[in-house]
Amino acid sequence: MNHFTQFENRPLADQLIEKALAYKNNPRMDISKGLGKRVGCIFLNPSLRTRASTQIAAMNLGMEAIVMNMDKEGWALEMKEGAIMNKGTVEHIKDAAAVMGTYFDVLAVRAFPSLVDKKEDSEDYIFNQFIKYSGIPVISLESAIRHPLQSLADMITIQENILSSTKPKVVLTWAPHIKAIPHAVANSFAEWTLGCGHDLTITHPEGYELDDKFTKGANIEYDQKKALEEADFVYVKNWSAFNDYGKILTTDPAWMLRETHLNKAPQAKVMHCLPVRRNIELSDEILDGKRSLVQKQAENRIYSAQAVLSMILE
Amino acid sequence: MNHFTQFENRPLADQLIEKALAYKNNPRMDISKGLGKRVGCIFLNPSLRTRASTQIAAMNLGMEAIVMNMDKEGWALEMKEGAIMNKGTVEHIKDAAAVMGTYFDVLAVRAFPSLVDKKEDSEDYIFNQFIKYSGIPVISLESAIRHPLQSLADMITIQENILSSTKPKVVLTWAPHIKAIPHAVANSFAEWTLGCGHDLTITHPEGYELDDKFTKGANIEYDQKKALEEADFVYVKNWSAFNDYGKILTTDPAWMLRETHLNKAPQAKVMHCLPVRRNIELSDEILDGKRSLVQKQAENRIYSAQAVLSMILE
Amino acid sequence: MNHFTQFENRPLADQLIEKALAYKNNPRMDISKGLGKRVGCIFLNPSLRTRASTQIAAMNLGMEAIVMNMDKEGWALEMKEGAIMNKGTVEHIKDAAAVMGTYFDVLAVRAFPSLVDKKEDSEDYIFNQFIKYSGIPVISLESAIRHPLQSLADMITIQENILSSTKPKVVLTWAPHIKAIPHAVANSFAEWTLGCGHDLTITHPEGYELDDKFTKGANIEYDQKKALEEADFVYVKNWSAFNDYGKILTTDPAWMLRETHLNKAPQAKVMHCLPVRRNIELSDEILDGKRSLVQKQAENRIYSAQAVLSMILE
Repeated sequence: MNHFTQFENRPLADQLIEKALAYKNNPRMDISKGLGKRVGCIFLNPSLRTRASTQIAAMNLGMEAIVMNMDKEGWALEMKEGAIMNKGTVEHIKDAAAVMGTYFDVLAVRAFPSLVDKKEDSEDYIFNQFIKYSGIPVISLESAIRHPLQSLADMITIQENILSSTKPKVVLTWAPHIKAIPHAVANSFAEWTLGCGHDLTITHPEGYELDDKFTKGANIEYDQKKALEEADFVYVKNWSAFNDYGKILTTDPAWMLRETHLNKAPQAKVMHCLPVRRNIELSDEILDGKRSLVQKQAENRIYSAQAVLSMILE
Repeated sequence: MNHFTQFENRPLADQLIEKALAYKNNPRMDISKGLGKRVGCIFLNPSLRTRASTQIAAMNLGMEAIVMNMDKEGWALEMKEGAIMNKGTVEHIKDAAAVMGTYFDVLAVRAFPSLVDKKEDSEDYIFNQFIKYSGIPVISLESAIRHPLQSLADMITIQENILSSTKPKVVLTWAPHIKAIPHAVANSFAEWTLGCGHDLTITHPEGYELDDKFTKGANIEYDQKKALEEADFVYVKNWSAFNDYGKILTTDPAWMLRETHLNKAPQAKVMHCLPVRRNIELSDEILDGKRSLVQKQAENRIYSAQAVLSMILE
Repeated sequence: MNHFTQFENRPLADQLIEKALAYKNNPRMDISKGLGKRVGCIFLNPSLRTRASTQIAAMNLGMEAIVMNMDKEGWALEMKEGAIMNKGTVEHIKDAAAVMGTYFDVLAVRAFPSLVDKKEDSEDYIFNQFIKYSGIPVISLESAIRHPLQSLADMITIQENILSSTKPKVVLTWAPHIKAIPHAVANSFAEWTLGCGHDLTITHPEGYELDDKFTKGANIEYDQKKALEEADFVYVKNWSAFNDYGKILTTDPAWMLRETHLNKAPQAKVMHCLPVRRNIELSDEILDGKRSLVQKQAENRIYSAQAVLSMILE
């Protein structure tokens, strides 16, 4: 594995899940594997879980992790080719990424979308500039359109909680939110769930259709009630409109998942990537109840990152 | 020892002081004790000494320390139970603390008081939410009402500088300041000094009475001159009013400790937890003179944290 | 070696260059040398390359590096002796530096100039306060007037790229910039280039004369075209006026180095300390072409810091 940016294929996904579960069972089994290797963690946007879990994953492999909060500790990067840099940007991504490629063995990058320039976001422009110019393996810590370490952690969590040998019914349900939120988590979850061979239903208000590049093969159902019937796993997530790019079309509280929504899904486990807006996206009763897998997902972020770093070191 | 949040009892305090002095003599004597263990250092407020000394203490035990500056690198936490999170807070303390409990073996938390909501501050609400929801040992790096690692360092410093075998006279004297300052250092200093069996006099302008939960057993003396007579240790500290909660009642410069105040206390050593406002709280002549123990207190912060981490690891 | 703040003498410079090249060849050859030693990296100003390269250099020697971003994680330091601290500053450099001297074995400090108070900047007041009060070896990570780790990296880069055994012609050429930039890099580059026995020509518009304390022995040539003839190494850098202190006198784009400027210097290699304002200071064609040594300079920052730390540990 060179870069880790998206779902590649089922055998690789299965291998990563297996590796992650082995690390979860014995986190320091490969403590010498990364000795003398360094991962640079570049944050163009804030982070809590992702930063801590990546640092821990690196430490568990004996690697050194150096965190750079570019927005606060560094400076504004210029992203455009050929730019005449007479404005606010202080360093070109070309130069910064190349330096980082010299300083580190692996780069891990978080770069959110603008939610303004649909074309640039869809091409994952900023993230791909790091790949283009660093010259070393790059791991996505959430790009404009994908959050693959989260999705890998989600797949691990589903695998740990499958009750029967039959294909689980997975539902991705849109939730209200007060801010315009990126599509990355929803896109990646769809991509990985489908790629891992699960049965996926996506439910959301009309207008909230995701980029079909990620959802092809999923069942789209506008009636949330119907979508949730007999669900085994319900993934709750807000995202802003994709067609009417970055817009909030509704905040209808009826879409907030509550216990009553799951009357016809008695065994359903509920997932969310965190941070979650309580009682806006998801009710307290569910988050604090037995259905919730959110803490397990968060814990699996460590082992998803560790499995990925480990395979990149190979 | 599970959590470290306050003075518990004299035998434990004596044990911690002894342990700290052993570490001061040989900082890396237990370098393998914390191997593979992680402490998460959560700062809801800025820090210099506390952050560095805690990191060093952890390193001296072979532990990994991960620092999270929540106000800058993370995001605003919601503290209220049952909150409908449709405002500025991004994640509930419940969820964030539980994740941290999964990621770390020990949590160290700094959470200052509001100085507005007396009841919430007095209950140490925010700090206790971390204890409630993280599920792992929590160390106070200064809470709304206590700063026990500072006080432990102060007790170590007093023990190192006691001249005779008789009970030392310790004086806590209020000092002027231009800002409203929390009560935590003063509260904890009183709690630990009394708990360690020292003779404590507290002097301050009328209206600056501390919460008597912390000062019971101390001699309260409004006449600073009288209070300082024959003092062995003079602890200088500003705090805002407790009764008229969070208010500044006076900034009378006569209360600033100067050499002339110590005419009748020739052997007095002067202490301050730093940062100190020079020539407002305390004069240059004292800070730069032979009476000052402030640098020794700061150095002992390392060993106070190391002793506490060490006992929590046991 | 005690402090590392400037060019001292040629034998020491040669020794540092040799040591740095040995580390470049085998970065972890002295991995046990710094075991149990700590370097505190104090940033009063932002940093990317300097912070990461210093941390990596420390790690390569088995040292622990603790980074403190004073402007963000700490608080405003008071710099004036005898100050009555009733304004915005929270802690006196005296106290903060002394604490750091207790916590660390080596201090590395970045402190930019004000570009307002010429006398204070010229005395390197802030940086020297850290030396005065910390009581431990201090390394400059760029002070008001010098950037010696950058210059050492530059000397290493020149040595690696000298084509013949004859003295290379080195040209330091002023470049336009939209902001008022410190003199530190230019000063240090002149000081080290001359100290290392290279032939140095400095070219800039009239009014941009540097402090002649640093440039004595250099050839000053106001005609950039003439200065660049037969150059072996061209160092491109903006600085603000020194005489008319901190002012921008011109932003004439004719001074931006382009390929056509180097018609009469076919073998010239081009250097810049980064970050560089592309197409303002230096053209894309040069930065992306074969002449550019900028990435090699950045890489050598690791080994320049490692050589210095190593000698301070001795």
